[in-house]
Amino acid sequence: MEEIFSDRVRDVPRSFIREILKDALVPGTISFAGGLPNRDLFPSKEIQAATNQVFERYGNDLFQYSASEGFLPLREWIAHRYKEKGLEVPVEQILITSGSQQGLDLLGKTVLNDGDGLIIEEPGYLGAIQAFSIYRAQFFPVSVSEKGMDTENLSFVIESENPKLMYTVPNFQNPSGITYPEQNRRSVAKIIEGTKTLLIEDDPYGDLRFSPMEQPSFKSLIPDNTILLGSFSKVVVPGFRIGWIVAPEPMMQKLVIAKQASDLHTNQFTQCVMHQYLIDNDINAHIAKIIDAYGTQKEVMTKSILRQFPIEVTYTNPKGGMFLWITLPKGIAALDLFDLAVKDKVIFVPGDPFYIDQTRVNTFRLNFSCANIETIEVGMKRLANAIKTLMTPKNAER
Amino acid sequence: MEEIFSDRVRDVPRSFIREILKDALVPGTISFAGGLPNRDLFPSKEIQAATNQVFERYGNDLFQYSASEGFLPLREWIAHRYKEKGLEVPVEQILITSGSQQGLDLLGKTVLNDGDGLIIEEPGYLGAIQAFSIYRAQFFPVSVSEKGMDTENLSFVIESENPKLMYTVPNFQNPSGITYPEQNRRSVAKIIEGTKTLLIEDDPYGDLRFSPMEQPSFKSLIPDNTILLGSFSKVVVPGFRIGWIVAPEPMMQKLVIAKQASDLHTNQFTQCVMHQYLIDNDINAHIAKIIDAYGTQKEVMTKSILRQFPIEVTYTNPKGGMFLWITLPKGIAALDLFDLAVKDKVIFVPGDPFYIDQTRVNTFRLNFSCANIETIEVGMKRLANAIKTLMTPKNAER
Repeated sequence: MEEIFSDRVRDVPRSFIREILKDALVPGTISFAGGLPNRDLFPSKEIQAATNQVFERYGNDLFQYSASEGFLPLREWIAHRYKEKGLEVPVEQILITSGSQQGLDLLGKTVLNDGDGLIIEEPGYLGAIQAFSIYRAQFFPVSVSEKGMDTENLSFVIESENPKLMYTVPNFQNPSGITYPEQNRRSVAKIIEGTKTLLIEDDPYGDLRFSPMEQPSFKSLIPDNTILLGSFSKVVVPGFRIGWIVAPEPMMQKLVIAKQASDLHTNQFTQCVMHQYLIDNDINAHIAKIIDAYGTQKEVMTKSILRQFPIEVTYTNPKGGMFLWITLPKGIAALDLFDLAVKDKVIFVPGDPFYIDQTRVNTFRLNFSCANIETIEVGMKRLANAIKTLMTPKNAER
Repeated sequence: MEEIFSDRVRDVPRSFIREILKDALVPGTISFAGGLPNRDLFPSKEIQAATNQVFERYGNDLFQYSASEGFLPLREWIAHRYKEKGLEVPVEQILITSGSQQGLDLLGKTVLNDGDGLIIEEPGYLGAIQAFSIYRAQFFPVSVSEKGMDTENLSFVIESENPKLMYTVPNFQNPSGITYPEQNRRSVAKIIEGTKTLLIEDDPYGDLRFSPMEQPSFKSLIPDNTILLGSFSKVVVPGFRIGWIVAPEPMMQKLVIAKQASDLHTNQFTQCVMHQYLIDNDINAHIAKIIDAYGTQKEVMTKSILRQFPIEVTYTNPKGGMFLWITLPKGIAALDLFDLAVKDKVIFVPGDPFYIDQTRVNTFRLNFSCANIETIEVGMKRLANAIKTLMTPKNAER
């Protein structure tokens, strides 16, 4: 049957995370591997109340085929929230998607021909690599660090390759937790402005900000070059699969066609429930609770690192989001650490799948949103032991 | 901005139905244009009860990221239902999709390279034409009539073009209402069997059967060559966007990758609600109610045609589903009739978008699921008048 498959699906990487997560099932294993929001913080009672409301309010309209653009009041709510943050987004420029992942799929569909250039952060979000691989993008990785994106390399790629798209997660990036500093954003914006490259600003974590200091969005700096993606997955619930794309008018027309061809429209019932939840509750108060929990968990994790990891091991110190990023000394592969750590009943995601063309890298991702403080302490101790074991020369002879 | 778009999205036809439906907003217009199930038959009370159940039963599991394959109990329910109908489908071969439309998208993604051959019924389902256009299929239309598919032409295309896919709706087809007779199915199966062509058997309407006589499915005749698509949209509700693909193991692996890249997974909450609804209620009794209503409405429509349409106008007489198909005398364009009918406040879908490379065709689609009996009678009278006006020579001189 192999010959029936399209070239695109032969190429695409299978989800590495899903694969290794199958190993997470050993009883007692502590997982820092997932990319899940903390289920204990889901506002289930409030969602149940909103659900009861919409049955009364909309009746059978909840269940019919509906607009490909999405539920209008929900789109209006999103536009209003941007306005509160100082961003003018006309409601016509908002398309509801079945999660941000679908936003990536629709953008790939709408923009990419085989071999078209796409700049991806290195390390970069695995789901984006997967989505754009399907449309056979030619990836140009540009490295990111706590200083933001490498603007020298960025300039070079933009000039020499004239890529159609550039994918970024400038706030509390997945996988690294990195946030581009303001000055770096302005430099990146300057490089992109006036080119034909469209910058995709994927911002699922932007609201999960542990400190009030906020950097300007690319959408505010270079609106004509920016496609903005948002999501309710990290601030309300992921199971509803509701995200959105903000795109200028001519692109929106094509995106709506792509949306029709992909799944007609996003689940109408849960769009109504989400909207009702948002208008009946104080979303900022809910987000504050998440921030409080994740912020504390992150602190516990970084303190464990500082206390227990060898000094040669470095780490990012995220100001928000769900992830942090560890760099082992050169020459030590995170995959080897993974094999040791699994036996010590703790897991994480080795950095490999977040790179386009590197393997056996010395970096890995830790998730701090899902485990409580006690679990983090136990898991980090196990992880520290595994690292020390790995870093101790095997045949230490005197 | 035009130059940024991919070739695939430049090519794809925008939904003709959506475009002309915008004209349906004139007050008092009767629409036979929609493709919607009748909203009055949605089991909203039962769904509300099922929703309350799942909040108690699953708690926060309703809201978390979940399996790309879909909610296991729902997949098991589908497998069990096939078994009741005599079809053995292992649960591992069932993938939950965001409606059948996504099934088409995932199949296009997984199978089609640019220019790969695909047989489409003529007339054929617009949503499929749209979905496969995105993957730049080369379409080979093969005509269908109340005798089923044109097997002579089918043989020719299969032999000469060796197409990768063939798309069929053998039960109560959209747009024509046609059902392939048993003998025709066996002939089609014989032609396909042993070739490398995969037959997509899209069966959203199969349960909406006005008479008990049932034909064998392609899945039962040529299981190795058949991908089966199903949906809850026409028998429960479409707003939940829940359909499924039945595919053999090696294809399922690729489809799951494509599903991950497209939207990670289908809405978990409504999969749970749908499953609860299905186990708490008698779905066959519910379907019987739909059949009763649609069957009666279809009768009223065909009787109106028989009584009022000129004898030269022919029509299909569906044994199920939601649509019937009118053929005007040669040389009379359904688009011209549409212009007249809109003024008489009745609309339908001209046949044009259901063909690959024909325009100003003399056929059109009527939907009988959405209007009640009185509305159908009024609308059909208006439509008969428009047809008579169009068929009367404009300058009738003696």
